[in-house]
Amino acid sequence: MEEFSDERLARLTGMLKRRGVILPAFEIHGGAAGLYDFGPVGGRLRNRVNQTWVDHWQSLGNVVEISCPTVTPYSVLEASGHVGEFSDFLTECKGCGAPSRADHLVEEFHPNAESLSRDELTSLIKTHNPPCPSCSDSSWGPVEAQNLMFNTKIGAGASGRQAFLRPETAQGMFTSFTSIYRHFRERLPFGAIQTGKGYRNEISPRQGMIRLREFNMAELEYFIDPEVEPNHDFSIWTDNVMLISEESGEIKTTFGEAVTAGIIRHPTVGYFMAWTMDFLGKVGINPKHLRFRQHESDEMAHYAQDCWDAEILGSYGWVECVGIAHRGCYDLSAHEEATGQKLRAWRTFPEPKLVEIDGWTIDGAKAGPAFRSLAGRVKEIVEGLPADSTFPLSLDIDGQSVEVLSEHVKRVQRSENVNGEWFVPHVVEPAFGIDRIIWHLLDHCYVETEKSGESYTLLSLPELVSPVDVTVLPLFEKDGMGDLAQKIHRDLCGRRNVFSSYDASGSIGRRYARADEIGVPWCITVDHESLVDGSVTLRSRDSGEQTRVLISDLPF
Amino acid sequence: MEEFSDERLARLTGMLKRRGVILPAFEIHGGAAGLYDFGPVGGRLRNRVNQTWVDHWQSLGNVVEISCPTVTPYSVLEASGHVGEFSDFLTECKGCGAPSRADHLVEEFHPNAESLSRDELTSLIKTHNPPCPSCSDSSWGPVEAQNLMFNTKIGAGASGRQAFLRPETAQGMFTSFTSIYRHFRERLPFGAIQTGKGYRNEISPRQGMIRLREFNMAELEYFIDPEVEPNHDFSIWTDNVMLISEESGEIKTTFGEAVTAGIIRHPTVGYFMAWTMDFLGKVGINPKHLRFRQHESDEMAHYAQDCWDAEILGSYGWVECVGIAHRGCYDLSAHEEATGQKLRAWRTFPEPKLVEIDGWTIDGAKAGPAFRSLAGRVKEIVEGLPADSTFPLSLDIDGQSVEVLSEHVKRVQRSENVNGEWFVPHVVEPAFGIDRIIWHLLDHCYVETEKSGESYTLLSLPELVSPVDVTVLPLFEKDGMGDLAQKIHRDLCGRRNVFSSYDASGSIGRRYARADEIGVPWCITVDHESLVDGSVTLRSRDSGEQTRVLISDLPF
Repeated sequence: MEEFSDERLARLTGMLKRRGVILPAFEIHGGAAGLYDFGPVGGRLRNRVNQTWVDHWQSLGNVVEISCPTVTPYSVLEASGHVGEFSDFLTECKGCGAPSRADHLVEEFHPNAESLSRDELTSLIKTHNPPCPSCSDSSWGPVEAQNLMFNTKIGAGASGRQAFLRPETAQGMFTSFTSIYRHFRERLPFGAIQTGKGYRNEISPRQGMIRLREFNMAELEYFIDPEVEPNHDFSIWTDNVMLISEESGEIKTTFGEAVTAGIIRHPTVGYFMAWTMDFLGKVGINPKHLRFRQHESDEMAHYAQDCWDAEILGSYGWVECVGIAHRGCYDLSAHEEATGQKLRAWRTFPEPKLVEIDGWTIDGAKAGPAFRSLAGRVKEIVEGLPADSTFPLSLDIDGQSVEVLSEHVKRVQRSENVNGEWFVPHVVEPAFGIDRIIWHLLDHCYVETEKSGESYTLLSLPELVSPVDVTVLPLFEKDGMGDLAQKIHRDLCGRRNVFSSYDASGSIGRRYARADEIGVPWCITVDHESLVDGSVTLRSRDSGEQTRVLISDLPF
Repeated sequence: MEEFSDERLARLTGMLKRRGVILPAFEIHGGAAGLYDFGPVGGRLRNRVNQTWVDHWQSLGNVVEISCPTVTPYSVLEASGHVGEFSDFLTECKGCGAPSRADHLVEEFHPNAESLSRDELTSLIKTHNPPCPSCSDSSWGPVEAQNLMFNTKIGAGASGRQAFLRPETAQGMFTSFTSIYRHFRERLPFGAIQTGKGYRNEISPRQGMIRLREFNMAELEYFIDPEVEPNHDFSIWTDNVMLISEESGEIKTTFGEAVTAGIIRHPTVGYFMAWTMDFLGKVGINPKHLRFRQHESDEMAHYAQDCWDAEILGSYGWVECVGIAHRGCYDLSAHEEATGQKLRAWRTFPEPKLVEIDGWTIDGAKAGPAFRSLAGRVKEIVEGLPADSTFPLSLDIDGQSVEVLSEHVKRVQRSENVNGEWFVPHVVEPAFGIDRIIWHLLDHCYVETEKSGESYTLLSLPELVSPVDVTVLPLFEKDGMGDLAQKIHRDLCGRRNVFSSYDASGSIGRRYARADEIGVPWCITVDHESLVDGSVTLRSRDSGEQTRVLISDLPF
């Protein structure tokens, strides 16, 4: 098992930069904190991890992919709660003016500084007077909430409309709910996924890929009927996993047992935890460095019914990489309320119900002329009033005051056979930080060893995500070996899902080492014999084994 | 061949929205002009077109994918010229205050209004007094240049740093040049591709998917040595294509002939035009609706040596969907100049050259103490001076004035054997507007026909990009047919690169029609017989043919 250390981290980071896997963005222009590039090797790794994620969740059979804009109007993120809530506490150094996150300043004085209130942070800073990370001064301004969204404007000049870069992809699934519901022919459960950029204007980004200002996200919003008991089969997950539950602390058990015991509070949350573990294993996360931690009640959003983080152990300690939350009906209800549009699903009763209706409606003949264009809105409101309402009644409709007199309304009392009802579906959301996962799979697959007395490193990446499938190496470029190697290389590049590279510099041993360093699972060497009998040497990264195969029999 | 008309366009747009292919974004919140969603059907179409593009260019064998941030510091886009140049001319209506693009207001009075200068636009507006599209008033304010980038800030509070959302993906390839050059072991030619979001804060977005504020881009930057004659094989493209060249007007010829005749001015430009045509054909663009138009000299950026647009004919007329430009050394030189970093490649001479060196260097003993920290910069400048320079000489280094006296310098005259030289590579760039291409492939594949006297539509999408590969239909859901159909559906969803959907509502005929409407190439029907002998009906969208096959023999 890997031994994580700061020295190993420095070597790994250096290799990732040197080989073009992950590197600070815009470095020739002085860089920009919290922004990273996936370079000539990392770009394909990112693409494959992303595509593996999409395929993984689509294989559920009732999940579709959508793609929405990142620029998001103010009203959408006001409705979702992000305008009001998505913030960190910031304080400015009185010496140099540099802003710091208040919780970062006091994290050595509190085990969970992120959860502290503004007053608690203010008092801790007063007590301990931490030094400014920029100038070492210890004099701090007031602690203020700072919204973390990137601001922008849609449209030109004075008519520009305030907007943000999305802090998550999830809102697109909620605002498109109607279209997705129609697509699934109005049958729950179903899900929609989206991958793409999310943004968070961090006050002080740090820890490499862990805390980015622009990041790759991947989220599933899975819509369910809260009255239908899910019927998930947990029997295929027989291994124990490490759970840290709110009530029981650290336990080792199976997902099925944890659901049965009520430790995981909803079966679909448990089911997606298991699917999450499977995904992480596929892309190269070491399952021994994985645990699931349940949010404490005071840590969880008020509307959430249960929430588990998949945490991965690596060079930065345990890091939250996935959150799996039961969000209840919060999101759809919030957009309903903000827009007046119904975001509901229909539930047919097993058999029709006789319902007593006792309430009010408007008397069209009198209400129509009285309220004119507002008559429809008045009707809607009146029909929602309880039976014991009294009139006259004052309503406020979009800022207009309306007086409803008793002559405008009629009492309604009748029995009705009802076949079903509209309800707001509940949502279970697995949300993935793709950059953090890529960081950790690199961290887990990075192996430092020795070869002939010299240090030797390799990336033991799963073939599914390795950035290069195969490297073609001519022993020499002369005598037609270079041409034949190029031909094989080009031919492999033309195959679907195969990416080959070509390397002709240095000894074969050096080139094997170069391929191992970035995790290429296979090398093909073209030599003099190849020109005669069409055979090449196929060498495996993992076993080091070399076999002679015909070009026509290459397993790609 | 399709007959494009406004009525057909309205029906197509309606279908795309109803079926969840492409729809206005954030509609429940009142929408936002220029922003679109790819819905539950379109999301997968977008993904597949994107991935097909990546695979297409990677199959060249010397092209790698990278992925850079969309949030881009000011200095990067200042260096690239976007801060100064990326703008449209805007004028505001004096009546209602709504901004309009000046060229849009006069486009019926000029064949190429987009290319007009500010004075020409002002004068045309004065002459014709076009009405405001919002209020019909005809009184206009001054014509002003308006930068089209979305503004934002990196970092919190007063220390935030000005930034933009990238207007193109290309800059990432230039700022990462060094890493890509190293990856290819310093051997030209090579290319880097990137797909992802680009942003353009349009003054007045219109024409559906054609003019978006946030769009999907895909660009290749291909770096070449301008002194090496490319050796492309054009023999596989034997068909004539429609070219509109600057000098010869509309001609039909092959790519190879057009390069030989000098109509296409650089072979690599011609080669990528051919690769572009192949890509467009793969994803469903009708080649009869494709032409390549060469930019006029006054339309082309001043640094470009040749530029061709791939234009596609559809419901909005001929629309530019791809630009293939020879950009010379402009981009790398611009970043070199702004950052002082060398973005160069090494060219080894066929044999060493004896070079006479006649110039200047500094006399360290005297210049060191005189210029202190600036001594290095002074040396660099002095060594670049011509032999006939005279001293004293005044230099301006980052705003500091420096006086170089004759005692600070020494004449250098000697012969030297030189093995090669550093040079700035040239760039050929194919840049794709993915949304415009998706729009046009839908437009080309949308077929309106009749079936049993009723109107019937289908999308004849290539299998490579169709959003759903196969739909599984139980004849009825009872008697185990639903379960078997679900089993087949889930099993197909679990296969790599296969996406299945399940549909149990309505008659089989209705369900075939629903599948045809979104271009599903295959339907599988599960009936009573299936339960007995494990066979199903496989029906082809294109031929309508139905065959009976065993479940184990399904061709997916």
